[in-house]
Amino acid sequence: MSRGSGFDRHITVFSPDGRLYQVEYAFKAAKSAGLTSIGVRGSDCVVVCIERKVPDKSIVPSSVSHLFSVSERIGACMTGLLPDSRALVSRMRNEASDFKFKNGYFCPVQVLANRTGDLAQVYTQQAFMRPYGVISMLFGIDDELGPQLYKIDPAGMYQGFKATAAGVKEQEAINYLEKQWKKSSGNLSRNEAVEMAIECLQNVMSQEYKASDIEVGIITSDSLGLKVLPDAEVEERLNAVSSKD
Amino acid sequence: MSRGSGFDRHITVFSPDGRLYQVEYAFKAAKSAGLTSIGVRGSDCVVVCIERKVPDKSIVPSSVSHLFSVSERIGACMTGLLPDSRALVSRMRNEASDFKFKNGYFCPVQVLANRTGDLAQVYTQQAFMRPYGVISMLFGIDDELGPQLYKIDPAGMYQGFKATAAGVKEQEAINYLEKQWKKSSGNLSRNEAVEMAIECLQNVMSQEYKASDIEVGIITSDSLGLKVLPDAEVEERLNAVSSKD
Amino acid sequence: MSRGSGFDRHITVFSPDGRLYQVEYAFKAAKSAGLTSIGVRGSDCVVVCIERKVPDKSIVPSSVSHLFSVSERIGACMTGLLPDSRALVSRMRNEASDFKFKNGYFCPVQVLANRTGDLAQVYTQQAFMRPYGVISMLFGIDDELGPQLYKIDPAGMYQGFKATAAGVKEQEAINYLEKQWKKSSGNLSRNEAVEMAIECLQNVMSQEYKASDIEVGIITSDSLGLKVLPDAEVEERLNAVSSKD
Amino acid sequence: MSRGSGFDRHITVFSPDGRLYQVEYAFKAAKSAGLTSIGVRGSDCVVVCIERKVPDKSIVPSSVSHLFSVSERIGACMTGLLPDSRALVSRMRNEASDFKFKNGYFCPVQVLANRTGDLAQVYTQQAFMRPYGVISMLFGIDDELGPQLYKIDPAGMYQGFKATAAGVKEQEAINYLEKQWKKSSGNLSRNEAVEMAIECLQNVMSQEYKASDIEVGIITSDSLGLKVLPDAEVEERLNAVSSKD
Amino acid sequence: MSRGSGFDRHITVFSPDGRLYQVEYAFKAAKSAGLTSIGVRGSDCVVVCIERKVPDKSIVPSSVSHLFSVSERIGACMTGLLPDSRALVSRMRNEASDFKFKNGYFCPVQVLANRTGDLAQVYTQQAFMRPYGVISMLFGIDDELGPQLYKIDPAGMYQGFKATAAGVKEQEAINYLEKQWKKSSGNLSRNEAVEMAIECLQNVMSQEYKASDIEVGIITSDSLGLKVLPDAEVEERLNAVSSKD
Amino acid sequence: MSRGSGFDRHITVFSPDGRLYQVEYAFKAAKSAGLTSIGVRGSDCVVVCIERKVPDKSIVPSSVSHLFSVSERIGACMTGLLPDSRALVSRMRNEASDFKFKNGYFCPVQVLANRTGDLAQVYTQQAFMRPYGVISMLFGIDDELGPQLYKIDPAGMYQGFKATAAGVKEQEAINYLEKQWKKSSGNLSRNEAVEMAIECLQNVMSQEYKASDIEVGIITSDSLGLKVLPDAEVEERLNAVSSKD
Amino acid sequence: MSRGSGFDRHITVFSPDGRLYQVEYAFKAAKSAGLTSIGVRGSDCVVVCIERKVPDKSIVPSSVSHLFSVSERIGACMTGLLPDSRALVSRMRNEASDFKFKNGYFCPVQVLANRTGDLAQVYTQQAFMRPYGVISMLFGIDDELGPQLYKIDPAGMYQGFKATAAGVKEQEAINYLEKQWKKSSGNLSRNEAVEMAIECLQNVMSQEYKASDIEVGIITSDSLGLKVLPDAEVEERLNAVSSKD
Repeated sequence: MSRGSGFDRHITVFSPDGRLYQVEYAFKAAKSAGLTSIGVRGSDCVVVCIERKVPDKSIVPSSVSHLFSVSERIGACMTGLLPDSRALVSRMRNEASDFKFKNGYFCPVQVLANRTGDLAQVYTQQAFMRPYGVISMLFGIDDELGPQLYKIDPAGMYQGFKATAAGVKEQEAINYLEKQWKKSSGNLSRNEAVEMAIECLQNVMSQEYKASDIEVGIITSDSLGLKVLPDAEVEERLNAVSSKD
Repeated sequence: MSRGSGFDRHITVFSPDGRLYQVEYAFKAAKSAGLTSIGVRGSDCVVVCIERKVPDKSIVPSSVSHLFSVSERIGACMTGLLPDSRALVSRMRNEASDFKFKNGYFCPVQVLANRTGDLAQVYTQQAFMRPYGVISMLFGIDDELGPQLYKIDPAGMYQGFKATAAGVKEQEAINYLEKQWKKSSGNLSRNEAVEMAIECLQNVMSQEYKASDIEVGIITSDSLGLKVLPDAEVEERLNAVSSKD
Repeated sequence: MSRGSGFDRHITVFSPDGRLYQVEYAFKAAKSAGLTSIGVRGSDCVVVCIERKVPDKSIVPSSVSHLFSVSERIGACMTGLLPDSRALVSRMRNEASDFKFKNGYFCPVQVLANRTGDLAQVYTQQAFMRPYGVISMLFGIDDELGPQLYKIDPAGMYQGFKATAAGVKEQEAINYLEKQWKKSSGNLSRNEAVEMAIECLQNVMSQEYKASDIEVGIITSDSLGLKVLPDAEVEERLNAVSSKD
Repeated sequence: MSRGSGFDRHITVFSPDGRLYQVEYAFKAAKSAGLTSIGVRGSDCVVVCIERKVPDKSIVPSSVSHLFSVSERIGACMTGLLPDSRALVSRMRNEASDFKFKNGYFCPVQVLANRTGDLAQVYTQQAFMRPYGVISMLFGIDDELGPQLYKIDPAGMYQGFKATAAGVKEQEAINYLEKQWKKSSGNLSRNEAVEMAIECLQNVMSQEYKASDIEVGIITSDSLGLKVLPDAEVEERLNAVSSKD
Repeated sequence: MSRGSGFDRHITVFSPDGRLYQVEYAFKAAKSAGLTSIGVRGSDCVVVCIERKVPDKSIVPSSVSHLFSVSERIGACMTGLLPDSRALVSRMRNEASDFKFKNGYFCPVQVLANRTGDLAQVYTQQAFMRPYGVISMLFGIDDELGPQLYKIDPAGMYQGFKATAAGVKEQEAINYLEKQWKKSSGNLSRNEAVEMAIECLQNVMSQEYKASDIEVGIITSDSLGLKVLPDAEVEERLNAVSSKD
Repeated sequence: MSRGSGFDRHITVFSPDGRLYQVEYAFKAAKSAGLTSIGVRGSDCVVVCIERKVPDKSIVPSSVSHLFSVSERIGACMTGLLPDSRALVSRMRNEASDFKFKNGYFCPVQVLANRTGDLAQVYTQQAFMRPYGVISMLFGIDDELGPQLYKIDPAGMYQGFKATAAGVKEQEAINYLEKQWKKSSGNLSRNEAVEMAIECLQNVMSQEYKASDIEVGIITSDSLGLKVLPDAEVEERLNAVSSKD
Repeated sequence: MSRGSGFDRHITVFSPDGRLYQVEYAFKAAKSAGLTSIGVRGSDCVVVCIERKVPDKSIVPSSVSHLFSVSERIGACMTGLLPDSRALVSRMRNEASDFKFKNGYFCPVQVLANRTGDLAQVYTQQAFMRPYGVISMLFGIDDELGPQLYKIDPAGMYQGFKATAAGVKEQEAINYLEKQWKKSSGNLSRNEAVEMAIECLQNVMSQEYKASDIEVGIITSDSLGLKVLPDAEVEERLNAVSSKD
């Protein structure tokens, strides 16, 4: 087998060309769920959008969500192994409330992204744990910097984005978003942001969605907490999108 | 051997295509007991139904139960290795009574499902323990949300269901339940819920059961605790089912 | 070697078909001692019977017993590796006296069986210990439920029985007991219970025993503690058995 | 190599046929010292007898003893690796004095044998220690039961004996002792007990000993502590033995 | 494979010729990011310069920085795996603020370099962690020694430099800097230092940069804290450089 | 390779024939230093004698000593790896001073030998340490028993001697000493003891020593502490020895 | 591969001929840096001399030193892996200041050498750490013994020397020093000591050094602390040396 000749079975070990195989496999695991998520920053809001894959119809749809409220001000969209997602969200919540308790104000998005990245990095360096098989998007409105959108991967890398994507069609979606962003003034209203996210998802997945097929999460500068758009509103935006074509 | 070339012997290690083999084998272990369990939500009750496999006749039947009372409000139906089931139930009971002690009210079903999933997830990530070889169904009546039915698997995944199944004939049973659910208004009385569960089990197992062959557990909005149906009542429902055909 | 290709050397690891080899080998170890034990519930007593194998004549017979008094109310008959038996009995005694201390009344048989099963289960899940190579029978009189007979195996499985067996001729003995149980009303007097156990043992082992060849333990509703039948009484029952044929 | 194919290198692992190889090898280690020890219970005494192998003449003979005083009432005769013997005796002494401290009376032989067996059993079950390569004989006078003689092996097995042997010629010596025991009334005076032990040792080793070649330890009902017979007395008994033939 | 025959998979193990393979692989990992960083000491300032590789255009540029403020007086330029960089910076910050707290004055650059090297060394000696895949440059103005520039590598080696480089084109850049340093009086003004760094980077990478393509960090004797040059100023220096040719 | 087929790489593991290979290799390590040491008990003194191998002439001779003062009353002569020797002496000193502190009188030689043996035994039984590669001789004057000489080996075995040897020519030296001891009355004056030790060393090593080639340590009943003989006195004894021939 | 067949990959394991391979490889690592260091004791001073290898010209020369001040009275010259050197020096400093704190006077050189050797020895015996890849020379003036020079190697061996060397040309240098020492009265003035060290280094390395090519450290009886000779003084001695030829 050409893949590292045993270097890929030990987490704490570099391969002869300086790669960490287990981390690369964790990326594959994150994508194995077959989901794609989109995040878009508007002028006074951040929007994320992800498919709602309900494996069978007897599942209560609300229990298959990839959107999580991390703190009163920060939302998370997790792409990857669902149990890992929940475990990681649980740790992020602790971090966020610890911060609030110690400092007296809400944990800013960039701080939480930083800590989450550190947490994930540790798992790539220690021998007795595997990395989390999940890519996280953290988003919220910062008092000073306005809308914020961060992506943290299994290697512990985190970066801020104007618009980004994660999952199986990550690259295609990112290319699409870049093009759209250039066209727009980069100054999107709430509706525009939601529509850009939905349009992007439909495009890269080559699918027409119904309101119940996707989840749309939004944090706006006036409400500050994660709001999941009700189906009616999603429907409205889907119509707006399809009428554009 | 084509199965992962050694990647399947280490729990904390992803295979090159991002899979966790030990977790997949735990699913097989859960199904190796040869049991199938069915769960159905009624309008004001939740019903689970599972075969009562007494390996030999000198066993006291009541000691071979797969139904457990987790707290005063929550029942569990465990499908898989019986010793693992009991160990996991024991931890769930601790979680539930901890919650009660700390918060002063009963642990809601969804919270317990969440914690049980987290517990199981940890076992897929650490090097020195194997995952539990068991699939759990947790059910109860929530004060606000009404009847609740959750399924937690060895990977730590948990989801809410209107009706679901676990075990060897899991897929067949889920298909059957979906069809029946569509036919019904989704608004089942107690008797209808029990009958749907029994009917489903008989169908996928292609067997005619006697009252002593199956266990039926129910939690209703007026009693709130797990009640195992007495044989007489099960008999009644079995007759009702057979008279339908 | 076809047996699991290395999966059988790690306790915490499932084989690709969901089996735990080490646990299966522990069963073999339990049977390797070549002993068979029989347990029978009477209407107001529980009886266990096991061969007394004294390897050489200079051994003090009383020091080769497989019957143990676990608490003032519970007896145990251990089939398997003798050192493991004693180590496990020692832990069961702690559990039982802990329970007594905490709760102020004697630990019921089913509770102790439950805890012993949990203890054994843990050893199948952790990496640094092997499972106990012993099958335990716990028996006693419950205040409410009457005579109780439980069997706990190396996998941590425990079940209540009307009559059961453990060891090399386990299956044959269980079949024999089932048949006898059916014939009897299931409502056995003390003498009948002892005789059924002895008869079963003689049958499956195809041997005529002397009083000194077997140990018979009994717990009755009027004395409540484990009583090992004196040789005279065993002799009496052996005669009764042989006169029946 | 046919011996377990790797199962013999891990202590905590059963082989596919339920054996614990490391424990079996520990027995061989115990016998590798080439010693045989004999223990005999008299009517009011217990006697042990073992060769005194002084590898070279410049060794101070008293420092090569296999007889140890464990407590004021209990003696031990250790057959096997000498360093292991001393380490185990050191732990037995702690156990015995702990018992005395907690309970206010001397630790009975059977209790100490039990604890020593438990200690040894643990070493067969844990991954990071090897079993002790030594077979212990514990002996003393019990207030109620009279003379007691126990043997504990590397597997943790302990049993009471009227007369027994350990070491390279264990089986031959046991056979010899059984025959002699039958001939005698089983009610031996001190001198008879010492002579039976010496005779047995000479027989199975096919050697004529001098007083300085063997160690004879005795505990009697009037002195209660371990007494090592002085050479003069051993000489006397050796003469008595040779005059019998 | 000729590379060490298994010696390269264990961190704490020397190969037969005294090499530590994992540390060598960590160097490769540090260079795998494809970045080159340049550090130059001026007469009253220290300058570092590194490419700003923004993988796609929707990333917020400020979140892909390789320049970190470690304390009020010390800056760091990290070349290598970004998550490792952040984790290491986080530990350096702790060290620096600990020092401040304990000693009442700012941690000097050489002290922090020393501690960071010690930290990294430990990771090459312990079995359960891998070394950090990153090369750090620490720089600042020392009260007594003036401008300081240190480089710490994954082996824990740290050295002070007048001008140095790290990353893929490390050797070429070092050669270039040496030549330039010789030409100059070694007494560079701020602008000269910035220009030498930029020129060097353009030369070894054979690229013409725009202001947004590179990050330039500077610490000067009058401000003492890390200042990242604004694009306008970088532009100015780039023009100065290109007008020189 | 026939040596144990892998059994020799794990300390805690017996080989199929009951051997502990690592312990046997530790003996070889102890002898690999190429030294031989001799110990002889006189009527009111104990003498040890060992070659002083100074690898090169620029070494300060006094820093290459194999004689150590363990307590005010006990000396040690260590044969084997020098760093192991020093580490073990350091632990023996702690044991001796602990004993003094707890009991108020000096630790007797036999007690210290016992503890040192226990310490070494533990290293043969645990998985994560190797045994010490050194053979120790402990010697001193006991208040009651007079001169004492003990030898402790890497297996933890310790024994008292009238005269003994350790190292490469151990067996030859022991044979020589036995013969000499027989010739002498066994009641040696100080000078006789020293001369026997020196003579023995010269004989087995087939060498004529100068005073600076050997170290002679002595503890006498009137001084009680370790005294290293000055070169002049050694010279005197060497002359006495050569004049005897 | 003939080198130990796997015995060289485990630190705590002796090879069948009693060798510790990892320790031998650590010696190679110590020499891999390509450096040679020389130490010479004068009548009232100790001198060490080592090449100053500055890999490239932009390194600040003072940051590539192999001379360390361990305490106010003791200097160290470390030959080997620089990060290991620094880590070990850091531990030696702790030891020395601990000693000062506990005992109220400066830690003598021989005591520190002893402790450093013990520290290194532990690393050869434990499973989870590798030995330090460095050879240390410790030197200072003892109040009673005068000038002291100790060498400690990766095995934990330490010895006092009149003059010694470490590193690649260790053996050649030691031979050279022995010859010179014999010629001299062994009673060297400061200048003579420095010159002997320099001459030796030039001889074995077959190189003519400039003042900036070598580091010379000296501790004298009047200043007591480590003094690194300024280039001017080194120049002077180099001239003296070359004028001798």
